[in-house]
Amino acid sequence: MPDNDFGPIAEPIFNKVAIIGLGLIGSSLARVVRLRNIARSVVAADSSQAVCDRVMALGIADEAHTGVADAVVGSDLVILCVPVGAFRDVGAQMSSHLVPGAIVSDVGSVKSAVVDALSAFIPEGVHLVPAHPVAGTEYSGPDAGFSTLFRNRWCIITPSESTCGEAVDKIQAFWAACGANVERMTPAHHDLVLAITSHVPHLIAYNIVGTAADLEEVTQSEVIKFSAGGFRDFTRIAASDPTMWRDIFLANKGAVLEMLGRFNEDLAALQRMIRWGDGQGLFELFTRTRAIRRSIIEQGQETPVPDFGRGGPDQFK
Amino acid sequence: MPDNDFGPIAEPIFNKVAIIGLGLIGSSLARVVRLRNIARSVVAADSSQAVCDRVMALGIADEAHTGVADAVVGSDLVILCVPVGAFRDVGAQMSSHLVPGAIVSDVGSVKSAVVDALSAFIPEGVHLVPAHPVAGTEYSGPDAGFSTLFRNRWCIITPSESTCGEAVDKIQAFWAACGANVERMTPAHHDLVLAITSHVPHLIAYNIVGTAADLEEVTQSEVIKFSAGGFRDFTRIAASDPTMWRDIFLANKGAVLEMLGRFNEDLAALQRMIRWGDGQGLFELFTRTRAIRRSIIEQGQETPVPDFGRGGPDQFK
Repeated sequence: MPDNDFGPIAEPIFNKVAIIGLGLIGSSLARVVRLRNIARSVVAADSSQAVCDRVMALGIADEAHTGVADAVVGSDLVILCVPVGAFRDVGAQMSSHLVPGAIVSDVGSVKSAVVDALSAFIPEGVHLVPAHPVAGTEYSGPDAGFSTLFRNRWCIITPSESTCGEAVDKIQAFWAACGANVERMTPAHHDLVLAITSHVPHLIAYNIVGTAADLEEVTQSEVIKFSAGGFRDFTRIAASDPTMWRDIFLANKGAVLEMLGRFNEDLAALQRMIRWGDGQGLFELFTRTRAIRRSIIEQGQETPVPDFGRGGPDQFK
Repeated sequence: MPDNDFGPIAEPIFNKVAIIGLGLIGSSLARVVRLRNIARSVVAADSSQAVCDRVMALGIADEAHTGVADAVVGSDLVILCVPVGAFRDVGAQMSSHLVPGAIVSDVGSVKSAVVDALSAFIPEGVHLVPAHPVAGTEYSGPDAGFSTLFRNRWCIITPSESTCGEAVDKIQAFWAACGANVERMTPAHHDLVLAITSHVPHLIAYNIVGTAADLEEVTQSEVIKFSAGGFRDFTRIAASDPTMWRDIFLANKGAVLEMLGRFNEDLAALQRMIRWGDGQGLFELFTRTRAIRRSIIEQGQETPVPDFGRGGPDQFK
């Protein structure tokens, strides 16, 4: 559903873009690159033949290959859109096929580990510019993608200090053309920011859904029926791709454990307030947290519509 | 936005309904009772004169009073829609004005404490039938209510074994007319079910928003910018009414602490999996939690639309 100001850009930024992995993010990228003419051609690579067939049927790439090398040859931009645990393997497959001057980038949710995994596979004259678009839904696969996924979301790029400035500028222009706001930071800082804004939230969502599933005193049928009291909100992010999230937690262990430590300390304090009946302490925290949502809405990162706008008069029936 | 099958019912169930507290829930009830002609008249009571004025301006009640007694006199149904911490005070104000045969009910999110707070104020010949509609949004006040809030949501009623069966049936019919599915359980079981499906989810949402606000390594501006990675989902329920939620945690201390204990145990196990790199354990949990969301969607308690349907092509800008 592109609107009028999301049409083709004046001049393609790249000649040929290879997208490795055509899931939610990869297929959304393929769609927006074609929609806005950000590259002259889009080549897809996915280890699944079924995904390649689907990509061609959807018409979102010019070619689709099950082998990484076939997609990388002759591409001036290669973007890894596979779970971060597969980066080393993809790196090994693409390394000898990268052309001089090419840029290698990615969309991984962790950045220090990506640099570690890929650096050895980047030949002289090829530029590594890691990136992370902070956008997504709870669905996976090439059918789940859409061209406006990155629109008004933030994309964080984490080049090293020695990275060619022109390559960094091109990746910044690429993401801006995809509709994103771009910010630069170090990989380590990125990993800390995302640990609190994304990784720990996913972890506690997965955790409470697991806890609820395992109770004996409350049946699973009751958990499902009465989920509108708050629980269902958590099930959305706990429905995210299991492979992708396993890899994120393993690859960002340090920052996740640090932020989880903070979360646990604060939760212990809250637990104590409840046990000792500290109504004033609870009230003060609950008032403070309201203000943060207001800021997120004001800065265009959330809808002000009640209940995310879900429902409507028939409330799903 | 009522649709065609949500019009007036054949015959009013009550003559005069007194709604005490005209916030999100109370004002939604007033709206649906009038829309569907569930009672011949609706009388509002709210300690705030501004709320009373607003209720009359919105035209959602026949009368509005700042005193509880004025609303209760002559009502055959009185529904408390104030935070549960105020129940004892409202009980004392209404007690001597209740008419024989009247039913007293409520919408509190905790039930054992409600029975404890109100029982002493229910005269001979008046019936106490506690209820809890599991529905809401993150907004508060008389303008936030809407007539379809309870539609296809569940309402739990927790009568005691000695409660007059006719009174219980009338409350069941009342909530069915409001669009809700009705289930009966004991107050103690209700409190356990809601602890895991609503109270602990709210607690951990409030907690992570608080943790994120207090960090030194990550700025509040970064938390807000990059909140689309998952964090923003938690801010919705952490924007809920502070007074209401303070009262819930104080009134359901036992069940909340029990369920929080389970949550903490499970989180410690998950933390250990991350520390020791147990990818298989993480993958298994993350796969299991996906299935629960599917069931919630199948049972009409959640939208299948990606990302709750929020966003759209311009993503809030």
